[in-house]
Amino acid sequence: MTFVLVAGTTETAGIDGISAAGETPALMAHTPAADAELVAYGRPVFAPIVPVSPEGCPTPGLVTRAVRDLLGFDVVVADAGLAARTAAPSVGFGSDPGADVRSADPVPDAAARHDVAREYAAGHPDDEFVVGETIPGGTTTAMGVLRALGADYAVSSSLPANPLALKREVVADGLDASGLDAGDLAGEPIEAIRRMGDPTLAVTLGLLRGALERGADVTLAGGTQMLAAATLARHADVTADFDVATTSFIADDDAVDVRAAADALDVTLHVTDPGFVPDEHVATDHYLAGVAKEGVGMGGALHLADRAGVPMADVRERLFARYDALVGDDGP
Amino acid sequence: MTFVLVAGTTETAGIDGISAAGETPALMAHTPAADAELVAYGRPVFAPIVPVSPEGCPTPGLVTRAVRDLLGFDVVVADAGLAARTAAPSVGFGSDPGADVRSADPVPDAAARHDVAREYAAGHPDDEFVVGETIPGGTTTAMGVLRALGADYAVSSSLPANPLALKREVVADGLDASGLDAGDLAGEPIEAIRRMGDPTLAVTLGLLRGALERGADVTLAGGTQMLAAATLARHADVTADFDVATTSFIADDDAVDVRAAADALDVTLHVTDPGFVPDEHVATDHYLAGVAKEGVGMGGALHLADRAGVPMADVRERLFARYDALVGDDGP
Repeated sequence: MTFVLVAGTTETAGIDGISAAGETPALMAHTPAADAELVAYGRPVFAPIVPVSPEGCPTPGLVTRAVRDLLGFDVVVADAGLAARTAAPSVGFGSDPGADVRSADPVPDAAARHDVAREYAAGHPDDEFVVGETIPGGTTTAMGVLRALGADYAVSSSLPANPLALKREVVADGLDASGLDAGDLAGEPIEAIRRMGDPTLAVTLGLLRGALERGADVTLAGGTQMLAAATLARHADVTADFDVATTSFIADDDAVDVRAAADALDVTLHVTDPGFVPDEHVATDHYLAGVAKEGVGMGGALHLADRAGVPMADVRERLFARYDALVGDDGP
Repeated sequence: MTFVLVAGTTETAGIDGISAAGETPALMAHTPAADAELVAYGRPVFAPIVPVSPEGCPTPGLVTRAVRDLLGFDVVVADAGLAARTAAPSVGFGSDPGADVRSADPVPDAAARHDVAREYAAGHPDDEFVVGETIPGGTTTAMGVLRALGADYAVSSSLPANPLALKREVVADGLDASGLDAGDLAGEPIEAIRRMGDPTLAVTLGLLRGALERGADVTLAGGTQMLAAATLARHADVTADFDVATTSFIADDDAVDVRAAADALDVTLHVTDPGFVPDEHVATDHYLAGVAKEGVGMGGALHLADRAGVPMADVRERLFARYDALVGDDGP
């Protein structure tokens, strides 16, 4: 099994109030690069930040890393346009960040990125991929492609109070800028990414197709962004079975019914509850309050731990150890 | 332990008769990228070639991969300026290939590449690095820096008939073009790389220093190129202990006395004999005839196998299986 972390950036994340994945837009640009280093090495190497919020909420990548400590799986970072350098060993799939979704053409090279990712997955020897993502602002671009395709389910958020009205406004502006009405790009997934998406969606779709076409198993590890990728795949006439794995925080989010969406998409959904309990540790209290919820393949990593019979208590213990080593016992 | 493969290219390799690492200069540009994929995945992914000579001699990277099959160590590719894309997960240390050593300034950004590599190694969590290289033409640029530093030992070759006269002529032309006499850059290792070297030497020196400075163990895995890197380190006032590991084919090469050089440099030398015997397999017969000899960390990988108690017969068995899967039982 290879865990592929698709890491990228989009100027959409700079819209005020869109994302919790970084204290300021300048710092947010470092979050995916830092997430990649965290999963690869357990700590930042080039990144000038530890991806932990000022309040002490760690990136979900720390959960993924904790599971990796226990299971030891291979990691490849798919660089889908990072805005900051990363020390994580990466394969390049287009170097430019995505532009603001409120422009006409935020991912002009969506087709090329998708094609290279498909070629990569087709040539990779492993028979199982678990694909996660890290891109601040990604649920907004996910909503963008869903609207362009005409899919009507909602999206989650890394913020406890999901700024859905803001996202809808941003997406409406994006459709206007692209000269589109909702549903205009049904059956045209690459064009939907190009006009309304972000670079990670192009790479994720390409990886999924290339792996499925050679008979490999694929689990898309994430919440609404991975449901958007699954929707893109069905609009690309992908009929093969694949899985989506996410966290209980996404499944419990009233903003989006992931179970209904998974049923409609005919994908197998795995929901894993890491068993966080109140007042056990600052690292997990924020998740219970609805912060972060998912990302960096957290739900997929938890599913892998569960599948391997690793108790969630062991995952939490590793998470706390990693957190304390990075941040200190007393929080940030 | 992390195996770091420093992969790069230099226009020096295009000089007729300099290198065996590729049938033509155009194909040679793909060799390091293909070597990286072979070590990472066991086969080419993006690379349009299998790095096996027309006569059937496999890249030494196949031996490294065979050992990795048995030991399962982590690999990071340090991209020191590949001329072709690679699907191997890589960390970037400067994107330009090196220019022809017969120009004044073949590695103008040697200092920057060295510094980033040093920073990377300083931030890496692993306590042991084994550093290999893949760069066609690398023994000629190794000779170039040795002359610039005033070191007088000779260099080996991937060709059975070492074109030493040609290399000396090329290096003499390079010194002329750089306005240097032999020894002029003693004590100035970065300048020696800039004027007479290649990008992999800058990155290797940076990795070595960054790792040693934080107390990690480093083994430079290779022949004369790694002795050149060790010489650069001593000229950079690195006094810490480190190791060099190479193959018996290098140690048996009359062109260069690696044991004397290692003694003079005060480094611990490991020489490992993979136990190839005549007429057992086309993959190994060429090595017995003096082709390739070393590269892609082969000597380091063999040392790791030996240290782990893995019999060389097991390494050969994996090598033959990998070769037959890539090339077919009947050769290329």
